[in-house]
Amino acid sequence: MSLDGAYDPDNIFAKIIRGEIPSVKVFEDDEVLAFMDVFPQAKGHALVVSKTSQARNLLEAEPEVVCKLALATQKLASATRKALNPDGIVVTQFNGAPAGQTIYHLHFHVIPRWEGVAVKGHAQGGMADTAELARLAQQISAALD
Amino acid sequence: MSLDGAYDPDNIFAKIIRGEIPSVKVFEDDEVLAFMDVFPQAKGHALVVSKTSQARNLLEAEPEVVCKLALATQKLASATRKALNPDGIVVTQFNGAPAGQTIYHLHFHVIPRWEGVAVKGHAQGGMADTAELARLAQQISAALD
Repeated sequence: MSLDGAYDPDNIFAKIIRGEIPSVKVFEDDEVLAFMDVFPQAKGHALVVSKTSQARNLLEAEPEVVCKLALATQKLASATRKALNPDGIVVTQFNGAPAGQTIYHLHFHVIPRWEGVAVKGHAQGGMADTAELARLAQQISAALD
Repeated sequence: MSLDGAYDPDNIFAKIIRGEIPSVKVFEDDEVLAFMDVFPQAKGHALVVSKTSQARNLLEAEPEVVCKLALATQKLASATRKALNPDGIVVTQFNGAPAGQTIYHLHFHVIPRWEGVAVKGHAQGGMADTAELARLAQQISAALD
């Protein structure tokens, strides 16, 4: 899918936000939701989405949504660092299929990195065990400021 | 370099901000600067930095700096799309050496992607031709809203 097109209200993240399909949440408020990626590229890989915007990508997002998502990404990254003690953290945000976007609801990835541990490709490691994701989400959530 | 440590006021981006070494600028105001990456991973690869913060990474950044950088990243991405018509745009932000960070002044990458064109690794394509960067910066700058 290109950078053009209409927002699909039945995309997976929209369903997660509406509670129609389950997710392993790290934190949420009225405007943002942070939850574990079910195809983690590394231990602790989580995502941040807006609960209010129908932006498919960064180009379409309202300025206040951009700020709130960036601050929530920082909050998630800080808690992930405290909880899991990674050596580094990668933040990515993909716009359009050729950039690696697979779900067309604007989202930021927070991916911990450890020295000597290679990152998996998307879905390369397979779907994560839900109990393991829940344990990681609890650890990260407990480290929130 | 890990996620810990002190800000080095003589890092390359600090010198660029102070005008001590040259850069190919796309836009700037009192708080942010967008300029072309001299080791582009794709045509039009540019960076956004804060001119006021001494945050080495996202974890250390003041909330207002996070917002301003995210909005400047969106502005750069939008102008890049209009100017160069890529099929996708990757936004990345690296924290710590194991995450790919090489310069310890918080920055966001905006990297255009085209269908069927592979991304180069950092420095893999070598240093860009300054005249070519200047031409691209002019195109992107002319497409700013």
